[in-house]
Amino acid sequence: MIRVAVNGYGTIGKRVADAVTLQSDMELVGVAKTSPNHEATTARRKGYPLYGAIEERMPAFEAAGIELAGHVEELVAAADIVVDCCPSGIGAENAPMYEAAGTPALYQGGEAADMVDISFNARGNYADAEGAAHVRVVSCNTTGLSRLLAPIEEAYGVAKARVTLVRRGGDPGQTDRGPINDILPDPVSLPSHHGPDVNTIFPALDIDTLGMKVPATLMHTHSVNVTLEEPPASIKAVRTLLGAESRLFLIPGNLDIDGAGALGEYAADIGRPRGDLWENCLWDRSLSLEGADLYLFQAIHQQSDVVPENIDAIRATLGTTDRAASMEATDESLGVGLP
Amino acid sequence: MIRVAVNGYGTIGKRVADAVTLQSDMELVGVAKTSPNHEATTARRKGYPLYGAIEERMPAFEAAGIELAGHVEELVAAADIVVDCCPSGIGAENAPMYEAAGTPALYQGGEAADMVDISFNARGNYADAEGAAHVRVVSCNTTGLSRLLAPIEEAYGVAKARVTLVRRGGDPGQTDRGPINDILPDPVSLPSHHGPDVNTIFPALDIDTLGMKVPATLMHTHSVNVTLEEPPASIKAVRTLLGAESRLFLIPGNLDIDGAGALGEYAADIGRPRGDLWENCLWDRSLSLEGADLYLFQAIHQQSDVVPENIDAIRATLGTTDRAASMEATDESLGVGLP
Repeated sequence: MIRVAVNGYGTIGKRVADAVTLQSDMELVGVAKTSPNHEATTARRKGYPLYGAIEERMPAFEAAGIELAGHVEELVAAADIVVDCCPSGIGAENAPMYEAAGTPALYQGGEAADMVDISFNARGNYADAEGAAHVRVVSCNTTGLSRLLAPIEEAYGVAKARVTLVRRGGDPGQTDRGPINDILPDPVSLPSHHGPDVNTIFPALDIDTLGMKVPATLMHTHSVNVTLEEPPASIKAVRTLLGAESRLFLIPGNLDIDGAGALGEYAADIGRPRGDLWENCLWDRSLSLEGADLYLFQAIHQQSDVVPENIDAIRATLGTTDRAASMEATDESLGVGLP
Repeated sequence: MIRVAVNGYGTIGKRVADAVTLQSDMELVGVAKTSPNHEATTARRKGYPLYGAIEERMPAFEAAGIELAGHVEELVAAADIVVDCCPSGIGAENAPMYEAAGTPALYQGGEAADMVDISFNARGNYADAEGAAHVRVVSCNTTGLSRLLAPIEEAYGVAKARVTLVRRGGDPGQTDRGPINDILPDPVSLPSHHGPDVNTIFPALDIDTLGMKVPATLMHTHSVNVTLEEPPASIKAVRTLLGAESRLFLIPGNLDIDGAGALGEYAADIGRPRGDLWENCLWDRSLSLEGADLYLFQAIHQQSDVVPENIDAIRATLGTTDRAASMEATDESLGVGLP
């Protein structure tokens, strides 16, 4: 059993912790938090051993009647691997602690690519993570692009990818975010960080990305163009290729799903925890081939699509399983793969 | 003096009527409306002769104390040209009336391209409109794309244009529109109508367009990619080329304008009527050249960018002035051309 610690129990951390408990080859040693907020209470309700991430704030947990199992350093020492799900930049501050304990660490996509040994996407470069001490699971958008581009590159070759990312302004709980009633080029200068970030997974891929921010909280949506080196005779081949990927959901036209709201309803209706969508959600009807140019729209659930990747990254880093077996185990345990 | 009638006095019609009164070679004969709403009262306040567009509804104007000069057919008969600014589809219903009166007519971009003799954009195909009986001034987005692509095609050749249009869900007054908190591929199938619509102005241009709708009301925003046939050595040349076009506003970086809200503030602050932005608003800092691929972001004010085009279309259709003289007269009279 792989003993897993989760440091940071917010949007990503709580999902990764739940996913760890569903793996037959993993054990959740505990989770660490800085403050006794509502997520701390749900961690305890689930029976997860809870550790204080900041020494001085630990009395606040006791005052709130929330039991702590100890300090995060004890948690890290007791684990075979730690998944750092702290806010962007905090992972880098935590790195020396993991280093001192000799515990390999996974970080999230908000950390800088150059602070880790390797950036990770299961479909893209699983095997390269083995034995690394510091591994970064790339961000939700980069994960979504990597999953999509990997099979396309293998089957047809990518001459050039051009992607406009229409990004949600903030998550539903981020009440300090915007914009309200506007469409912002963000960043206004090219490229957005997504293109270079995809290159941490596929160094040779030619990709230009443009980012915008809009008043929506549910999902990101990508307008994707890929100029193919060797385009197939028809779009049907692309549909078959992408449809075979477990983490790409080709939204059938008959479902009448027009956007992220309907996708979320669908996910909740079929019993997905928190209404999560771990898969890229591609509109099947958007798949188009104009000469060598492939086009499509895909929606990315920023809160959950990296969760299966974090689980795979645990096995990849410790070298316990190969890619196919890990992805299958993860998908099977979570229920990844929509009809 | 060109005697101009405006049929339909809503978002576009009221702006076109105001613009007509500013032209030294035009006279506003009157405007026609279906109902005595707030816009009818402002037409009268400005002293515009007001005509009833629907016979049966004309008593409602009298009941509301709003004086009518007659029925729209009288208005059309008294004019050298009529600008139809009615809602999409109504223009086609009005065409026989204009035909019967022998009055040439301009229509807006919501009408079908195949119901007119020619689709029009001043920068694109001014000279082709002369003598036409039915002329369609293309929509706000197609106008924005035509203005941008015309100089690029002339200077470098367009191998392929690929545009993602992130569209405002509705105008500020359209309280029945959406979406709320979502990002919708719209249409989900490619292409959006904008590409084929650009081809009504530039038949040979290779362009693919994708449309999305978001919860914003102020402006559309385009993510533009143009693969150039003969790219210049640096982006500076493109900046100079586009900067010389009076209807392209290259937003300087130092203005700290991040989106449509700030653009509207700027327009209002400098005294633009209704805060209108007749120019394409291109972010100068977004202009990028990656090999042969040109990229940029531009915002399009859906309520006003076609206004100068309607004025030019009047002169072009009647053959009174050439393109350069008309565009200069229109720009000078309205104040088109931001620093």
